Amino acid sequence: MEITIATRAEDYSRWYTDVIAAAQLADYAPVKGCMVIRPNGYAIWERMQRALDDMFKETGHRNAYFPLFIPESFLKKEAEHVEGFAPECAVVTHGGGKKLDEPLFVRPTSETIIWDSYRNWIQSYRDLPLLINQWCNIVRWEMRTRLFLRTTEFLWQEGHTAHATEEDARQEAMRMLHVYRRFAEEWMALPVLYGEKTAAQKFAGAIRTHCIEAMMQDGKALQAGTSHELGQNFARAFNVTFLNEKGGREFVWATSWGVSTRLIGALIMAHSDDKGLVLPPKLAPIEVRVIPVFAKQPEKVGTAAEALRKELSQTLRVDMDARESASPGWRFVDWERSGIPLRVEVGPRDIDNHTAMVVRRDTGEKTSLPREGLADRLAELLMAVQKNLYDRALAFRNAHTYQVDDYEDFKRLIDERPGFYYAHWNGSSVVEAKIQEETKATIRVLEHDVEASPGKCMVTGEPSSRRVVFAKAY
Amino acid sequence: MEITIATRAEDYSRWYTDVIAAAQLADYAPVKGCMVIRPNGYAIWERMQRALDDMFKETGHRNAYFPLFIPESFLKKEAEHVEGFAPECAVVTHGGGKKLDEPLFVRPTSETIIWDSYRNWIQSYRDLPLLINQWCNIVRWEMRTRLFLRTTEFLWQEGHTAHATEEDARQEAMRMLHVYRRFAEEWMALPVLYGEKTAAQKFAGAIRTHCIEAMMQDGKALQAGTSHELGQNFARAFNVTFLNEKGGREFVWATSWGVSTRLIGALIMAHSDDKGLVLPPKLAPIEVRVIPVFAKQPEKVGTAAEALRKELSQTLRVDMDARESASPGWRFVDWERSGIPLRVEVGPRDIDNHTAMVVRRDTGEKTSLPREGLADRLAELLMAVQKNLYDRALAFRNAHTYQVDDYEDFKRLIDERPGFYYAHWNGSSVVEAKIQEETKATIRVLEHDVEASPGKCMVTGEPSSRRVVFAKAY
Repeated sequence: MEITIATRAEDYSRWYTDVIAAAQLADYAPVKGCMVIRPNGYAIWERMQRALDDMFKETGHRNAYFPLFIPESFLKKEAEHVEGFAPECAVVTHGGGKKLDEPLFVRPTSETIIWDSYRNWIQSYRDLPLLINQWCNIVRWEMRTRLFLRTTEFLWQEGHTAHATEEDARQEAMRMLHVYRRFAEEWMALPVLYGEKTAAQKFAGAIRTHCIEAMMQDGKALQAGTSHELGQNFARAFNVTFLNEKGGREFVWATSWGVSTRLIGALIMAHSDDKGLVLPPKLAPIEVRVIPVFAKQPEKVGTAAEALRKELSQTLRVDMDARESASPGWRFVDWERSGIPLRVEVGPRDIDNHTAMVVRRDTGEKTSLPREGLADRLAELLMAVQKNLYDRALAFRNAHTYQVDDYEDFKRLIDERPGFYYAHWNGSSVVEAKIQEETKATIRVLEHDVEASPGKCMVTGEPSSRRVVFAKAY
Repeated sequence: MEITIATRAEDYSRWYTDVIAAAQLADYAPVKGCMVIRPNGYAIWERMQRALDDMFKETGHRNAYFPLFIPESFLKKEAEHVEGFAPECAVVTHGGGKKLDEPLFVRPTSETIIWDSYRNWIQSYRDLPLLINQWCNIVRWEMRTRLFLRTTEFLWQEGHTAHATEEDARQEAMRMLHVYRRFAEEWMALPVLYGEKTAAQKFAGAIRTHCIEAMMQDGKALQAGTSHELGQNFARAFNVTFLNEKGGREFVWATSWGVSTRLIGALIMAHSDDKGLVLPPKLAPIEVRVIPVFAKQPEKVGTAAEALRKELSQTLRVDMDARESASPGWRFVDWERSGIPLRVEVGPRDIDNHTAMVVRRDTGEKTSLPREGLADRLAELLMAVQKNLYDRALAFRNAHTYQVDDYEDFKRLIDERPGFYYAHWNGSSVVEAKIQEETKATIRVLEHDVEASPGKCMVTGEPSSRRVVFAKAY
């Protein structure tokens, strides 16, 4: 409770760290760039895992587990892939007291070790599609780290699928992109743009990378999930072929897709306020906290609060803060910082009136509700909170989304008024790199499902068929 | 299907490997000593995780996540601990393209990195007990590996708790030992002995190690779970103290406890037969497989089988093998090898008679059951299978459990007739080591909850207060 939370206006970056500390979500670890995910933070990850895992299984995927260690020679089999990942790997050189013959890379992603197995698992078209997912830890050596958003070790899931045709692989990549989009919108209450990355920003080894992009409360973008079409690159590298229906041999088509504990960072940055954490009800480990206000009748209040807690627990995720050593005000602040969507106060007067005082974390709104049928009313309120968080995030994004046509304007505005900037671009990686160098903004996404609207590149004046989305990003 | 399964009698070790291959549970990985857990194997682990995690949460534990990497200096803070674990560690010496200042050990267990955090989390008696569990991967460099039972990387859970008194810690260690015992008995259908390890066999850094021990079908023992009283060893090493109720400072008392993917190996070895895998229903990812026997009425049979599958799926975990390309006999063998507890055959005559043919995997027993109310009858049968597997394993253990008083007899019998040998021992580590060297048998457990029965050490003739359990072990 000794932690003071900075306001977003005074120091957004410190605010983020303070919110995490006040809610006891995570700590920096003694190992450089690593984090300890504390029980309050891990409980959010468990809810995310459960929801995503259900969605993966509904779409036909099964979980498996592949080794943490990848031989150096494997990583080298796909040229772009090794170039992209080798520099950020942790390398095991000794094991069991001896120097190893070949160094082992701690997985920065698992395409190579998985496609080595797929060579044995895939013989004919009957073995396809092969739809596998893995939940695991990943290590990428990071110089500048930030809890949840960028850490040397993080937790994630990685889907790795194999298909008979390019079209099947493409459909899978799009299916999973939309699983991520739905998860962001429906569970995280987070509106996202979705579409393709530029060639310069795609995954090392992919043909095309699709992504979802969210806006944080400082107007910066955050890539929240990616889905890659890998073409036949890994099949060629690991010689994975299948016998097609006509009896011929073909290389297999691949996708991979992933989201990570980074989503917890996105959740925090998207919804929390100057009082601390705000969680969308569907991902909140606890939806309702009961707080007895003992006044001078501790026994009567304690009994009523416990009865209420028990009743609500039948249908809702509920806890209770009945510490007599802490004042109600203190416990209210604690509730606020923990991000729990609703609190229910029970005092002597509430008991006499057959009511309970309900407070929403998102709006601070206080309402006295009838004690009878309270669980149902709370369930409705939780839905309202979930919707409000989404609407609020969408309104914020809309209010910070702009069109810009002049590059000089862009250079000034992207600093003065951060947000998503729709601008024309000639499709050149050189121009993309120049813009990034001069403004630190990147092209976040070439949106799917939007109509063409011709114009002129804001930098070169060359023709452009559509606007793309620029922003500074985490 | 091209895999032949060796019989247990002809080659127990090959039988084990063949059962795993035939059921597609796991493969050896290209990285020495590591394994790939295939979807069929991982689904068993997921069911184990769910059941154990529920039991941990019911007993007040919460999950968290600590770093994969442990600085060398941390491991060295507890003398016995580093001596036990350092020789089997994988060591990261390079990260992000540079040599590290201090080597990082890939966690062989997490006491040190966790107790470093506990120093910050624990201030006063109000913070105790602290009851945390972690699900993660572990690396211990192994020379001789065997799928699931002993691999360089494996998956596990590790509980790490902190307490105000030695008595509280002791109770926690016992509580979790009995959670493991119940899990083994009720979920795995595996009878276990439970008790304490000898000083020579305890965890490096523990005061006392408690364990559960199961018997495999070759009469060898398998340690299936351990629960450690760590005393104040790690609290002293990491300077973790708390303010007690009287205002004094004390070191915190610790426990740790874990089970791993090794349990999958135990499950296979305990119940499977010469036809392949046998799974206890409660841990079987699929409980019932529907197999349409098309005969000459594929449409009629297909429709009826799909209707049945759908109906059974309401309350049971069901799949269907409706491959018209594979003969019924072929599909029956496939079902056998997959370990699914029940199969339901649907053929034209069954449909006409409003019945279904049900076959048990554990006994091979075939029964024609009325189609109406079939789901309920299958649920009853599944309970009967679960019970039968437990009873069968217990009968096997009883039939392979012996008392022995003469060391020469013991030396001969432990090879001729492997099993659990109850024998008297003088309590000396020297004698224990001599027995192990001469017979390869170890003391598996000093059982809790058994009455004293004085006798004489089979090696030295010195007095002994009780018999201990000797066996060869995995």
